Amino acid sequence: MAIDKVVLLVGGVGGAKLAYGLKELLPPEKLTIIVNTADDFWLYGLRICPDLDTITYTLGERVNKKMGWGIANDTQQMLGALAELGEDTWFRLGDIDLATHLLRTKMLRDGATLTEVTERIRDALDVQHEILPMSNDPVATVVETAEHGRLDFQDYFVRYRWQPQVQALHYTGADEAKIPPRVREALSAADAIIVGPSNPWLSIAPILSLPGMRNCIKERDVPRVAVSPIVDGTAIKGPTAKIMHELGVPQRAQSVADYYGDLINAFAYDEQDAPLTVDGLRTQPFQTVMRSDRDKMVLAERLVRWIETLVD
Amino acid sequence: MAIDKVVLLVGGVGGAKLAYGLKELLPPEKLTIIVNTADDFWLYGLRICPDLDTITYTLGERVNKKMGWGIANDTQQMLGALAELGEDTWFRLGDIDLATHLLRTKMLRDGATLTEVTERIRDALDVQHEILPMSNDPVATVVETAEHGRLDFQDYFVRYRWQPQVQALHYTGADEAKIPPRVREALSAADAIIVGPSNPWLSIAPILSLPGMRNCIKERDVPRVAVSPIVDGTAIKGPTAKIMHELGVPQRAQSVADYYGDLINAFAYDEQDAPLTVDGLRTQPFQTVMRSDRDKMVLAERLVRWIETLVD
Repeated sequence: MAIDKVVLLVGGVGGAKLAYGLKELLPPEKLTIIVNTADDFWLYGLRICPDLDTITYTLGERVNKKMGWGIANDTQQMLGALAELGEDTWFRLGDIDLATHLLRTKMLRDGATLTEVTERIRDALDVQHEILPMSNDPVATVVETAEHGRLDFQDYFVRYRWQPQVQALHYTGADEAKIPPRVREALSAADAIIVGPSNPWLSIAPILSLPGMRNCIKERDVPRVAVSPIVDGTAIKGPTAKIMHELGVPQRAQSVADYYGDLINAFAYDEQDAPLTVDGLRTQPFQTVMRSDRDKMVLAERLVRWIETLVD
Repeated sequence: MAIDKVVLLVGGVGGAKLAYGLKELLPPEKLTIIVNTADDFWLYGLRICPDLDTITYTLGERVNKKMGWGIANDTQQMLGALAELGEDTWFRLGDIDLATHLLRTKMLRDGATLTEVTERIRDALDVQHEILPMSNDPVATVVETAEHGRLDFQDYFVRYRWQPQVQALHYTGADEAKIPPRVREALSAADAIIVGPSNPWLSIAPILSLPGMRNCIKERDVPRVAVSPIVDGTAIKGPTAKIMHELGVPQRAQSVADYYGDLINAFAYDEQDAPLTVDGLRTQPFQTVMRSDRDKMVLAERLVRWIETLVD
């Protein structure tokens, strides 16, 4: 059966690849992307939303493809000047990228919601597919580390390049954060919900930590598919496998399925892994490694075709 | 008699030229520059201090000499991106210049005073001469205009390019603003106080509007010299003559002397003007038009030599 509305849950770079593939496959009215905002932070008085920007820039064909984030051919004049002023410029801010942060900060200070800001920016960048922040309320991932104690997420991820050993993760503010109406609507209208190949603990868990979010998803009697970010026991990019090890979770795709539990009813894993069967889950191997835009489109298409068979 | 300590009061571009000449003439311990901050404003969550930056960039040999403000060879990548996001980019912000605003905003939000911020920035830019904001408390020039009613200063000055007709000027916040200790100290220790060739109504009046400031200056029994910004009935640059006309003040150098009144006891005017005598004032013609760095140094040197004769 053809699928009319897909909702994708993602974090940043890894999820953006699948988002790109789905955007090429599906018209705007058939795809809504819900994005983690627990990496968001304040820097020099600017509100930075790394995952929202990565998704928006990727869909808007502006992203620096080599990095997977930031703007292609951006300059760093401001950052160089800031270093000359004696600042520790550990977080890369391109000059073009800065415009996004300045506009967002201005709009937020003027009372706009992050949902409204995100829509304004994607409209301006000609991104037609809907991108929704998971919440308009601040949620912040805090990483408890062996070496440095509690670290704000960007300190852990960027400043220390995810090298500290993770002991625990907290999503501060989540208890009071609300699910925006459009996110609820998109989930209730979805014919399929896809959890992108993002880091389950760093990118997806904050979304699921919002009160009511797990239920909004679980109660939907539609394919609820997670795509494994673990391939052959390791992660394509970033700290997923490392964190699993540190949290005492076996570094294999099945651990991701186990982690999501009854949130999902189907699981897509990589064809390099051994055949995977999990009670209560439909499973299917795919080539999940996306090196080229073609890889992204092929995975998106195969995934959607498979999901269609699940509702037949 | 040789002069040991000079204090210069200035606004932006015009005053920066004399500041540059004096900086070339006098060692750092002999010159303190007190700068108008009533043009300061918030833009995109950033605290912008146009006059402080113009003075700092000029003394640090970074200024865009063609404009008289901003950074030489700066780029406008951020501003171009902001325009693409649909914003009205009426205020020019260079990419390198942005670093100053970001650092300042961060420091202010972290509790630093504007005096501390200004010192940090000039240190980083190797400016040795002391630059002091007139106050650490916010004062904002508001321009009452015939066409648009009350305008914030930058709206009047930059957005509308000082074309609206000025009916009155207000320096909001001045009543509660305090004179920083270093400004008081510099004025009490000065052997000469020079009011730069800045716009008396827009740049110098806000400084004088601080409670106690006129007295801090007047009570000093030292040369207190204003340099006329009016040459041959007009202004070298900017709206000084236009504002005089709109406020019903005759457009000539003597009106500037009259405006300052007993604040000053000496007055330097341009040699193109008719010989000027004002009761109670020592007056002297100079070549006040500063087109080259050499002009600035020559005026600074002649001015200081003349001031030395006043205390003989």
